[in-house]
Amino acid sequence: MRESAGLRGNCIVAQSGGPTAVINQSLCGVIQEAQEHEEIKEIYGARNGISGLLKEELIDLRKEKASIIDGLRTTPGAALGGCRYRLKSWSESNKDLEKIIEICRRYNLRYLFYIGGNDSMDTANKIDEAAKRMNYQLKVIGIPKTIDNDLILTDHCPGFASAVKYLAVSVMEAGRHLESLYHSEAIIILETLGRNTGWLAGSCALAKRSKEDAPHLIYFPEIPFSLDRFIKDVKKVYHEIGGVFIVVSEGLRDEKGNYICARKDRISTDAFGHPELEGISDYLKEVLESQFKLKTRTIKPDICQQSAVHFASRLDMEEAYLVGKEAVKLALGGKSGYMVAIKRGKGKVYKRGISAVKLSLVANMEKRVPLRWINKKRNFVTKPFIDYIRPLIQGEVDIPTQNGLPYYHRLERRKILISPSLRYSKVSFPKKPLSDTKK
Amino acid sequence: MRESAGLRGNCIVAQSGGPTAVINQSLCGVIQEAQEHEEIKEIYGARNGISGLLKEELIDLRKEKASIIDGLRTTPGAALGGCRYRLKSWSESNKDLEKIIEICRRYNLRYLFYIGGNDSMDTANKIDEAAKRMNYQLKVIGIPKTIDNDLILTDHCPGFASAVKYLAVSVMEAGRHLESLYHSEAIIILETLGRNTGWLAGSCALAKRSKEDAPHLIYFPEIPFSLDRFIKDVKKVYHEIGGVFIVVSEGLRDEKGNYICARKDRISTDAFGHPELEGISDYLKEVLESQFKLKTRTIKPDICQQSAVHFASRLDMEEAYLVGKEAVKLALGGKSGYMVAIKRGKGKVYKRGISAVKLSLVANMEKRVPLRWINKKRNFVTKPFIDYIRPLIQGEVDIPTQNGLPYYHRLERRKILISPSLRYSKVSFPKKPLSDTKK
Repeated sequence: MRESAGLRGNCIVAQSGGPTAVINQSLCGVIQEAQEHEEIKEIYGARNGISGLLKEELIDLRKEKASIIDGLRTTPGAALGGCRYRLKSWSESNKDLEKIIEICRRYNLRYLFYIGGNDSMDTANKIDEAAKRMNYQLKVIGIPKTIDNDLILTDHCPGFASAVKYLAVSVMEAGRHLESLYHSEAIIILETLGRNTGWLAGSCALAKRSKEDAPHLIYFPEIPFSLDRFIKDVKKVYHEIGGVFIVVSEGLRDEKGNYICARKDRISTDAFGHPELEGISDYLKEVLESQFKLKTRTIKPDICQQSAVHFASRLDMEEAYLVGKEAVKLALGGKSGYMVAIKRGKGKVYKRGISAVKLSLVANMEKRVPLRWINKKRNFVTKPFIDYIRPLIQGEVDIPTQNGLPYYHRLERRKILISPSLRYSKVSFPKKPLSDTKK
Repeated sequence: MRESAGLRGNCIVAQSGGPTAVINQSLCGVIQEAQEHEEIKEIYGARNGISGLLKEELIDLRKEKASIIDGLRTTPGAALGGCRYRLKSWSESNKDLEKIIEICRRYNLRYLFYIGGNDSMDTANKIDEAAKRMNYQLKVIGIPKTIDNDLILTDHCPGFASAVKYLAVSVMEAGRHLESLYHSEAIIILETLGRNTGWLAGSCALAKRSKEDAPHLIYFPEIPFSLDRFIKDVKKVYHEIGGVFIVVSEGLRDEKGNYICARKDRISTDAFGHPELEGISDYLKEVLESQFKLKTRTIKPDICQQSAVHFASRLDMEEAYLVGKEAVKLALGGKSGYMVAIKRGKGKVYKRGISAVKLSLVANMEKRVPLRWINKKRNFVTKPFIDYIRPLIQGEVDIPTQNGLPYYHRLERRKILISPSLRYSKVSFPKKPLSDTKK
C-alpha cells in the first residue's frame, strides 16, 4: 500500500463502446493499481458504461476474488458491459450531467476512469467539465480503447494491434487456402471493420511477405472508391498471379463521400448517429462475378476481430494493462480531464512512452491513415505503414485452457448496490422489450 | 531404410477438394513414410489432384528440402493444390481412366495416394478399378480429409476437429463480446460450412459451458428448417438471457428438402454438381430484424474455418500425419482400393485405432449427424455429440512465427517433369481466361 497526498475517496471505472480483445486488461490495470493506493477506498465498476452509472448500477469490485479479476485479463468482451449512450453537453441539457455528479457525491466517488474510444473521451470530458462547474472534486481520466485506432494524440490505441494480428493471420491462412484453389475459386474478398478509417484494412498488408502472398489489393475509406479502377486492379492481379485476395474496409465511400453500402432501414440503437453499414464485400462479389464469371467468396469476421483473445498481440495486452495503471497514477497525481496516451520513441527499435493529453483535444476527433502511407495506385499500403504497425503485433499470449478451449472468466458478484430501475435476475443484462411487428 | 517384399516402383501423391488446416500433415506423412522404404524409388506429387496427373504436372518431391517438407506440416492450404475434377466412370467414358493408367505406366507409378473427401474416394476407387481392368499393378490408397466429417466407416475425418476448434473459440469470443452489448446488439448469427451435414454447426456447442454462454441455438441441415419455430426459439432465448447467439449451417433446407438459400445464377466450376449456397445468415438476419427490431449481426468465417492452422487441434494434426503414414504401409503391404480409417476404442478415454475400409463402400456416401444427437427441440446437440467431439479438439500446436505472424512454407521446386499444356511461369497455378461480360 503506497501513501501519497492525493484526494481521498472512492473510485469508479467503466467500459464503453464496443469491446476489444484487451479492454479487460485496462480494467484490471485500473483495479489492481487502485488497490495499491490507500487514498482509494472503494473500487466500483459501473455496468454498461455511463448508462449504468446513471442508473446507479454499481458493482463492488473489492468483493471480487483476485483470481477472477486477474483472469479477466485474458477474457474477451467487456467484463462490466459496454454502452452506446450519448451524454448531452451542459449547454444542450444538464440533466444527465447533474445527475452523474450527484451520484458521484452520494457515493463519494472521487476518481472516474472511462475506458473507450473517441465518443467515450467526449463523455469523460463532459463529466470532467460538469464536476468543475458544480465545484465537485472529481478526477476524470480517459483510457484509450478502440480497434479502429482512430484516436488522435496517441501513437496507437490499445485493442488495435490484437485485431490486426488476428486479421493478418486470417488473411495469411485464407490466402494459402485460396492459392490451392485458384483454378476453381479465384477471388476472395475479406471485409474488415473500419467505418471511416483504413487502419485495420491496411494492416492486413502484414500478411504479405512475397508477391504471391495475400493480400493483393486493399481498399481504404480514406480514398474515394472507383468501381472502374477496382475492376482494372482485380484484372491485373488475376493475370499476374492467377487469383486475387482483396481486403476492403466496411466503410468505403464514393467520390461524393457517401458510403457505398449504407443501410436505408436503420435498426441500430447507436446513439452517436453513426450510420449502419453492411454488405460491401457481398456487393463487390456480385460486381466481380457478373464481370468476370469467376467464383468469388467473401469472409466477414465481424466481431471476431474485436474479440480474438486467442491470437492477441502480447505487446497490445501489456500496453492495455499499462494504460489502465497509468490512469490511476495520473488521477492520484492530481490530473483530471486527461486521456492516457502512448508515445513512440524515435529510431528503428520500438520504444514506448506514456503521456497525458487533454480530453477536450481528443474528444470526437478522428485520426485517419496518412495519404502518404497509401500507395500511388491507392490499392495498398507503403512501407511507413508497415514500419508503424509491425512492432505492435509482436508476441503471443498464453491463454488458460480447459478441455481444449480457452477458459474465460466472468465477474462473479454482479451485485448491484442500488438499482431501482432494474429487475435483477440471474442473467444480469437488461433487455429491451421485444416489439413484434409480425405475428 | 526398411526392406520388404512389396512392389517396386515410383509413388505419386495428390490432394483433392477443398483443403483443411491439416491436409499437408497427411501429405508429409506420405512423403516421410515413403522415404523410409526402398521399394519406393521416386516420390512424385501431382499438382491440383487428378487434373494435374492427367496433365502430367508432376513435382519431384525428393528434390524438395527436408526442412520445407517438414514445414508444410503447419502450413495451411494444399501444398500441391486441390482440384474439383470429376472423373468419369469406366462405363461413362474410359478416356480419362485409360490416360491415367498410361501415365502411371510411363512413369512406373506403382503407388497412388489420394488425399480427399467422399468425391475423392470415388476418384481413387475408379482408378483402382481401371488399373485392375487394364492389368496394371497399382496400389491405390485413399487418405481421408474433410472438415465436413461426412465420410462413412471412419470415426471422424482429419481436418474436421481443427475446424471445430477454430469455430468453437470464435463462438466463445464473439459470444462474450455480444454479451457485453446485449442492450444494443442483441443477436448474432454465425454461419458455418456444411452443405448437407451439421457436424460443424453442432460442434460449436463445445463453446457452451454455462447457460449464459454462446451458442444458444444451433440449426442443422439434417432437420427441415421451420421459420416459425426459429422465431419462437429466438424469442424464448432472448426473454431468458437478454441476447441470442445462433449458429446455422450454410445448408439449411425446407420441409421439401430444398436449400433455403441456393443460388439461382451459378458461377462455380465445381464439377460434382453440388449446389452453390449463400447467404443463409444474411437471410435470417433480415427475418429477425423485421420481426423484432433488434440489431442483428452476422459472422461468416468461410474458408478461415478450413485453414486456421494457428488454432488447430494437436490431436487432429497428429492423426492427419498418421493416416498419411499408414496409407503408405497399407500399400506396401499389398492392399489397394482401400481408405485409411480411424476407429475409436470403447470407454470414456479416447483410444484410437487405424483400419482400412474399401473405397467402393466409402465413395460418394455421406455420414449425417445421428438424429438422437440432436435435441428434441431440434435446436441444439445432446450429450453424446459432445462426448464424441470433445476428445478430438485436445491440444494446441506451436506454429513457427516470424515477426509476430506464422511462418508458412511453399514447395520450392515446383518443377514439372512434363507439362505440355501449361505455359510455365513464375506463378505456377494455371489460370482460366477472364471472360469480360461488361466493359
